[in-house]
Formats: sequence, structure tokens, C-alpha cells
Amino acid sequence: MRRIISAVARDVTPSKAAQDMGRKTADEMLDMVRKVTAGLPQVTDVQLGGSLAKGTWLSEDADVDIFVGFKRSVSKERFEETARQIGFESLNGYSPYVKYSEHPYVEARVRKTRVNVVPYYDVKQGEWKSSADRSPYHTRLMKKSLTTKMRGEVRVLKAFLKANGIYGAEIARQGFSGYVAEVLVLNFKSFEGVVRNMAGIGRNTTIGRAEKKFDGMIIITDPVDGKRNLAAAISERNLGRFVLLCRAFAARPSADFFKKRRPRVSKRLWDDMLVVSFGFRERSPDIIWGQAKRIAFSLSRQLELGGFVVLRSKAHVGEKAHLFFLLESGCIPLLYQKDGPEFFRQGSSEKFIGKNRRDLKLVWIKDDGRITSLRERRHPDAVGFMKWFLKNNIQSDIPSGLQDDFVRGFKVSMGSGGLGKSIKEAADELISTDGAFLHFD
Amino acid sequence: MRRIISAVARDVTPSKAAQDMGRKTADEMLDMVRKVTAGLPQVTDVQLGGSLAKGTWLSEDADVDIFVGFKRSVSKERFEETARQIGFESLNGYSPYVKYSEHPYVEARVRKTRVNVVPYYDVKQGEWKSSADRSPYHTRLMKKSLTTKMRGEVRVLKAFLKANGIYGAEIARQGFSGYVAEVLVLNFKSFEGVVRNMAGIGRNTTIGRAEKKFDGMIIITDPVDGKRNLAAAISERNLGRFVLLCRAFAARPSADFFKKRRPRVSKRLWDDMLVVSFGFRERSPDIIWGQAKRIAFSLSRQLELGGFVVLRSKAHVGEKAHLFFLLESGCIPLLYQKDGPEFFRQGSSEKFIGKNRRDLKLVWIKDDGRITSLRERRHPDAVGFMKWFLKNNIQSDIPSGLQDDFVRGFKVSMGSGGLGKSIKEAADELISTDGAFLHFD
Repeated sequence: MRRIISAVARDVTPSKAAQDMGRKTADEMLDMVRKVTAGLPQVTDVQLGGSLAKGTWLSEDADVDIFVGFKRSVSKERFEETARQIGFESLNGYSPYVKYSEHPYVEARVRKTRVNVVPYYDVKQGEWKSSADRSPYHTRLMKKSLTTKMRGEVRVLKAFLKANGIYGAEIARQGFSGYVAEVLVLNFKSFEGVVRNMAGIGRNTTIGRAEKKFDGMIIITDPVDGKRNLAAAISERNLGRFVLLCRAFAARPSADFFKKRRPRVSKRLWDDMLVVSFGFRERSPDIIWGQAKRIAFSLSRQLELGGFVVLRSKAHVGEKAHLFFLLESGCIPLLYQKDGPEFFRQGSSEKFIGKNRRDLKLVWIKDDGRITSLRERRHPDAVGFMKWFLKNNIQSDIPSGLQDDFVRGFKVSMGSGGLGKSIKEAADELISTDGAFLHFD
Repeated sequence: MRRIISAVARDVTPSKAAQDMGRKTADEMLDMVRKVTAGLPQVTDVQLGGSLAKGTWLSEDADVDIFVGFKRSVSKERFEETARQIGFESLNGYSPYVKYSEHPYVEARVRKTRVNVVPYYDVKQGEWKSSADRSPYHTRLMKKSLTTKMRGEVRVLKAFLKANGIYGAEIARQGFSGYVAEVLVLNFKSFEGVVRNMAGIGRNTTIGRAEKKFDGMIIITDPVDGKRNLAAAISERNLGRFVLLCRAFAARPSADFFKKRRPRVSKRLWDDMLVVSFGFRERSPDIIWGQAKRIAFSLSRQLELGGFVVLRSKAHVGEKAHLFFLLESGCIPLLYQKDGPEFFRQGSSEKFIGKNRRDLKLVWIKDDGRITSLRERRHPDAVGFMKWFLKNNIQSDIPSGLQDDFVRGFKVSMGSGGLGKSIKEAADELISTDGAFLHFD
């Protein structure tokens, strides 16, 4: 294992030239931002953050994160607005644009490097006002605690996560952030330590020191905030994939774990894939992704109530939003059994019989004394069901934030016909076996 | 209600001529049996039993039941053998044959009347040795307790049960015996009393005096044996039908309740009817019916385990035995989801993955942390599944009493093709709405 890890470490550590280059861009940008903020009384500090500051960046991911500290007395509105002005002014020559996390921030491409100008409140530990406020503490902690050796280990871990598609905290992915990788190495000292510990981890294990009780399969506390569970942003599925990957790697270490694998896609399952798509008015990715995921979840439940078996579902947000539902079958039997009350319950059993006698196929008494009936479904096909449901339940069952979008229109279809390449690739995940399992062959 | 009941009572009470005729046949047969048993030291008594003795017989059901009492010291073997000889000798001129209840007895048709010669042990109340031992006590009790008026009420109740297909205690029907009808009238004084009480009955009600705790939806104790629940021989379904009929009749009394109704059959449901048939070596009806019902129940469970939805099932015994299974669909989706362990459980999750990777369609981790897979069914059609199951599981899953019969052969098919008229009619029950419900229209 050591040999493989060393080889990977060499691969993923940026060359001297790249390091100089990154440092140069960072210094240049820092100067710019400092110049722009000079004399602004509400700005307390400008500092380099992120993996570049902590020395844990991968060759190919040289993001420059510049953090601009604000006095805690500044209102959220002025905080956002001032930060935006600072960002645009600083990155003026590089076609800057706005991106969204909890708060908007400004980004630009400077040569091949992505540069972000991110505001935070310069507050005491624990008195957080915005989610970026912890970042300077993270930077300080890692600069102080990670040895050069450990920085290399963080890089190896990031490469491992990345190759297996579970690197990145964005809501679209719900994977492991760079900071989580650093925290894991800080806890377990090395990549191998992380692998061995995660391979043997049990349910409800807490990594780090917790200052409260957390729900969750695995808890990873933030070293600068024991009230925060870093694993909460990681999906259960990705936690599981990571644990399985660690087990497989511990059992049979190989350089293959650091190479992207093409997933094995069962194309013919596309026949049973229900697709709902809708356009939406511009909003922050976190918002629309959250909404799309929620509605995918709630429509899954509706499909189940309608008699369909939903094997997997997912949301994907691009130009439009797409919801994918892999069904056991797109067509289900026309007739289904609907149980009623026990025959002893006079009022309700008469109501049940009366109701069922109208569009009745069959009514009988079961061995457990319940009256039961055979009814005809209105929509034994998934497309018909979903169209009917969405047309009639926008008000009651669509999250209010999406109602206007659905009123404006939506599409329901079965299979991959008419979908663009990137959309199909997003849905392919549902009909592919997780890479984590391929190592068990 | 009174007017309708009176009219029915007139209809179902045998005419003077019929009564004389019945009495004459009974006396004649009693004489015969007495002659044959005269001088047999083990025989203690010969008496008329059944509805004729109690004066509760319906015009069309003039059975003559002659009970032959044996000393309790007689062994079961001699009891059966002697009774058989007595029966055959007594009914000599009328082509007698053997029938089976708990013990064999001899029956013959004398003119248009069915005559049974049934042995019992002449024991004290409560010291029962065979199930027929209570009969003389029943006869004595009813002769003593039922007034002429009440006998008429019993006849009306029997006619009500009969018209609605729930009269008869035989295992094929699991309905209400004549004795249960008498006991109900004894408890509630009149047909109307029975109807009103049964219409409002609650779960776990006990009718009569119980000497122990019984399980069951409704308990009807035997007045001559408080340890016996007469309702145990009645199916839950028939209890329910009776209660519903009583409610409907109480709400809208009508002579229609005393007329047989043609059930409304949903013929097209035959398409989803799985039929298993097999021949069997001669045995008593109670035995083969019990076996057929048990195997129908156990094969229903197997079908469910195989992914099929069994709506209703039933057994029918004629020349051959037939098992009917009304399915939601005879064909189910080829792929199905099979859940495995949580990813935390190292050993079992690796076993699950390994097993599923071979004939794998898809493996993934669910949001609850369980590993799950998509598998292909070997038998997505019910006929294929059942043939496969029966061929491979006779030893392990067929009741031992039927294994030889199944080894000799069985047939599995879908739909009504190739079935005789009486077989089809038996199965029609599964795709018909209970008559009890038709009164709610």
C-alpha cells in the first residue's frame, strides 16, 4: 500500500513550477483586493484561504480563494453588496461573474486558475454570522497542524475521492469537501490511517470531538466548531461508497483506485425510466437543487401511492430541471386490491361497500374479517399517472417555490428519447452500478 | 319484517303430508336398526336425531339421522366396524354406502330421503369420546327447549342461510350447521332476534355461556358443552357474510333474502386465474379437503414470495382436486429489487455484493445505508413459477399426505381453458361478488 500511496502522492503534488505559478497568481490577486478594500472601514482583513493557503491543493485544482473579512456590525445586505462591488472591481480585467453559496460571491478565471472573492464576518470562534466565517479559522488550524507529510496525505485522499466521484461538497454531488479530507487526515494522521479507520467504521461513530448529540450514520465534527457535523452535507450513499472503497482498497491496494472508471451502464433499463422536466426562473443553485431534490422525493412517494415501484430517483439541474424515476415497470396491472374496514364496523363498512359497488369489480370478505375490493386504476401507465397528478395537484403537492415554474409547463416522458447527451449522462447514474462495487469483482 | 317472516315460515314448513311421510320413513328405519341391533350387548340405544327429531327440518331437507349408542368401553375400531355392519344390514335394501365425518357412517337413499346410521358413545355429558356423542344431548335439549313457534323460526333462519349459500357445516362450505341455527334461535328467541343481534354484533362477542376463553371473531358456545365453540367450524368469511346479510335485512326486509341469487361473475378475471390440479388416492372428504385447503394456502404464500400478488385463492375437491389462485397479474416485471445489509456490516455486505455481482443488473447504496440490488427473476410468469416450484419442492413444501399424489402428477395452467363446467363454477366464486353485498345496491 505504501508504494502505491507514494507514487500517487508524487503524481498529485503540483510541480515546483506550478506551485510558483499558483503562488504568483494568488499574490497578484491578493494585492488587487487589498488595493480595492484599502480605506473601507467595514473591511477588517483580506487573506488567502482554501487549499492553496493550506498547501493541500491538487495539481489540477489550483483555486485561489480570497476571503474578505467584514465587521460583525455590518448588515447582511451591505455585506453582500459591498463584497460584490469589491469582487467586481478587483477582478475587473477578467470578466467576473456572480456565484452562489449561502451568500453570493464573485468569481473569475485568471489565466487557467479560478479566483473567488468571498466575504465573511470577522467574528470570534462560535459567534458565526455567515457560513463562511469559519473559513479563516479552518485555514489557520490547518496551516498550524498539518505537517508537510500530512499535506501530501491530504492530496492523496482528495485524489482518491475525486477518482471515485465523491469529491465536492456542492449539493449536486453531496460528496466530501476538501476541508473534510483535511479533517480526516488530521484525525487519522495519514491516508492509510483514514482508509483503515473508515474501512472498519461502525454506525453512529463520531470522528472528532462533538459538543452536542448528532443524528447521522457517521459524524465528522468540525475541529473549530464541535457543534457542526461536517458529514451532514455528505449523502448517505456517498458515505457508504467511501467506506466500501476504503475496505476494497485496504484488502487489495491498487493504483486503479486513483483512476476514473467508466461506470457499467445497463442501457436497457432506460425503458423503465420516467422523466419529468421543467424550466425554472433563475435562482441560486443551492435553492433550485434543493427544490428539485425535494420534489423528486415527493413525486417518488406519489408514484408509490399510485401503485408504481420506484427503484431509484434523482434530480438534475442544468438549463432545465430534470427528475428521473427508475421504475420496476412503467405499466402496472389495471386492477388492484383495496382493503376496507372489518365487517364489524357497521358505518364504515357500509360506506366502503357503497363506494366500491359503483365502480366495482369485486368485493369480498377476507379471512381476517376485513372487507376488501378489487378496483380499477385510472392510470396504469406511469406517464399518464404523472401527467394527471401534476395537472391536478400543483397547488397542494408541489413545493410553493416551484409552483409557478410548473404552472408555466412541464414534460413527462418515458425513456431517453429526445433528451440531450448531458441529461442522459446524468440519468445514467441511476442505471449504473456504483464504481465502489466494481472493486469487489 | 314480521309479514315477510310469516310468509317464509309458511313456505318452508313441511306440509302435513310431508311430515307424515318423513315420520313414516323415520319410524320404518328406526325399526330396522332396532331389529338389527337387538341382542348386541355393546349397543345401548337407538334413537332418531337430527332436524326431524327436533322438528326443525325444511321441506326439502328431510334427512333421517339414526343414532346408535355404544358402551364407552368399546374400542374405536370395534365401534367403527360394528356401526358399519349395523348400517349396511339395516339399509340393505337401499344400496347403502360409506360416508365420512370424524368416523365413517353408513348412508342410503330411501325413496327421496337420505338416511344416515351414525354411531356414538353413550357417555355422560362432558366425557365425550367421539364427536357424535353430543348429538343425543343436542336432540334432547332442543326437543325440550324449542317451542313450536321457535321451530318455525329455526326453519326461517335455515332458509335464510341456505338461500345465501352459507348453510352447511361441511368443510367444503364451512357454513352454519342446522344445530347452530337452532342454538341461535334458542339464544335470541326468534329469527328477528337473531337478525337484530347479529346485525349489531361486535368483535369477540360470545353468544351463550362459555366455560373457557376462546379465540375467534365471534364465539357461539354449545349449550351442552361450554368448552366448545360452534363458530370455530364457520369460516370468517361466512361469519362476515351472515352479519352483513343480517344488517341488510334489518335495514330493508324483503322476501328477496330468501331467494337464491345468481352471483355477478366478472368473467374476464379468468385471465388472471392460476389453476393447479392433481389427482389423489381415495380418502375421507374431511381429510382431502383439509389437505387441499392447506396446500392452497401454502402455495399462495409461495406465489407471494415469488413476487406475485394473490388476491384470492380456494381449493375445490371433486374427482380431482383443483386449487385456484386469482392473481393481480399472471406476469410480473422481470427485474426486482433485493435489499441487502447496511454497508456498515462488513462480512455480510461483502457476501451480498459478491453474490449479486454475478447475475447482477445493478447494485447501489440506498439513503438508509442499505446495499440493494436489482435482480432478474427466473420465472416472471405464474405458470412457469408454479411448475418450477412444484417440481423442485415436493419434498420440502408439500404436506406429506399429498406428496405421493403430486409425485404422480399435477397440472398448472392459466385461465379456464380445458376445465369442466362444475370446476369452472367452483372457481367462479373467486371472481364473483359475495351475494351479501348485492343487497347493499
